[in-house]
Amino acid sequence: MSKRGMLVILSGPSGSGKGTIVRQLLNERDDTVLSVSATTRPPRRGEKEGVHYYFKTRQEFEKLIRQNAFLEYAEYNGNYYGTPEEPIRRLIDEGKNVILEIEVQGAEMVMDHRSDLVSIFITIPSLGELERRLRERDTESEQAIEKRLDIAKRELSRAFRYDYIVLNDDVSLAVERIQTILRAEEMRYSRMENYILEVVKNA
Amino acid sequence: MSKRGMLVILSGPSGSGKGTIVRQLLNERDDTVLSVSATTRPPRRGEKEGVHYYFKTRQEFEKLIRQNAFLEYAEYNGNYYGTPEEPIRRLIDEGKNVILEIEVQGAEMVMDHRSDLVSIFITIPSLGELERRLRERDTESEQAIEKRLDIAKRELSRAFRYDYIVLNDDVSLAVERIQTILRAEEMRYSRMENYILEVVKNA
Repeated sequence: MSKRGMLVILSGPSGSGKGTIVRQLLNERDDTVLSVSATTRPPRRGEKEGVHYYFKTRQEFEKLIRQNAFLEYAEYNGNYYGTPEEPIRRLIDEGKNVILEIEVQGAEMVMDHRSDLVSIFITIPSLGELERRLRERDTESEQAIEKRLDIAKRELSRAFRYDYIVLNDDVSLAVERIQTILRAEEMRYSRMENYILEVVKNA
Repeated sequence: MSKRGMLVILSGPSGSGKGTIVRQLLNERDDTVLSVSATTRPPRRGEKEGVHYYFKTRQEFEKLIRQNAFLEYAEYNGNYYGTPEEPIRRLIDEGKNVILEIEVQGAEMVMDHRSDLVSIFITIPSLGELERRLRERDTESEQAIEKRLDIAKRELSRAFRYDYIVLNDDVSLAVERIQTILRAEEMRYSRMENYILEVVKNA
């Protein structure tokens, strides 16, 4: 009897380091993959269909919206971005855990639509630390940094929507914490039910 | 800001090895203690009040029942046994995790009354394996073994009431699985809420 995978939301404020964490997590787990988004923005050099994105025309994307094919979608800078549900369903049936690395707003849209998921909010040790990280990047204006901090504050106030809070004070520790959560979730009754039925049968 | 402890139910069929698992778990965790039961049975040699049991007269025990002081209680062989709530509340406030190592029926009584707990069902690999373990003890008649297997089967069918299922194929592995569950539960939003509030404050 093969096990179904889990849908795992990984979110957190910009600068929380979720991208780095996800890459390390995927390296450590063969049974876990990243969800691939759909977009109407044109492919950049080296980007592959179905690997980096599913590339769609605007017409195709809007048709998929009407068909309710997305767990969540949004429009940024004139392009659509969305999370198609069908590939996720397929992977989960195959026993893969699917990670949705997603912004806080998108995460809430997904949580509004599905309950059979594990949601993890990555947090930074403090807003002061986030400010330091943003300044270290040195790619943004003072005004842009202020705006990001403001958004982070608002996003932190949405943490109550998540099952788990993971502190990213250190990337390896944060990955280990997520591994702990995934291992615990694998022992949930709903995931062990078939096992129990087998125990009773093997008298 | 000190953290509150968790109330953890550890249950499972007789022969599942929960007693051994709990002893090893308590050795590994300084922040975790075993709940002490109250009973009307007389103390045996070496048993200490408040360590092995809270020893009560029948009259005292029945008064506590009327005062709703027990999370669960039952009568076996003419003696009452019960789990007093007050000491548990005190320990949890002090930040200790309290383990209730308890039979399946008592566990359900506790779950009916409280939702702020983590419930773990210890299972054996198979009923055949349980039968082997019971025969190894060699302390019981054929009839007694049959009866125990029958009860175990009924108890396994109640596993759906629990948050987590932990397989005891090996004691150390089972303890490690419970540790994983406790570490994950410590990252639940409800337990991390104060942390998030601090993050937002420390701008």
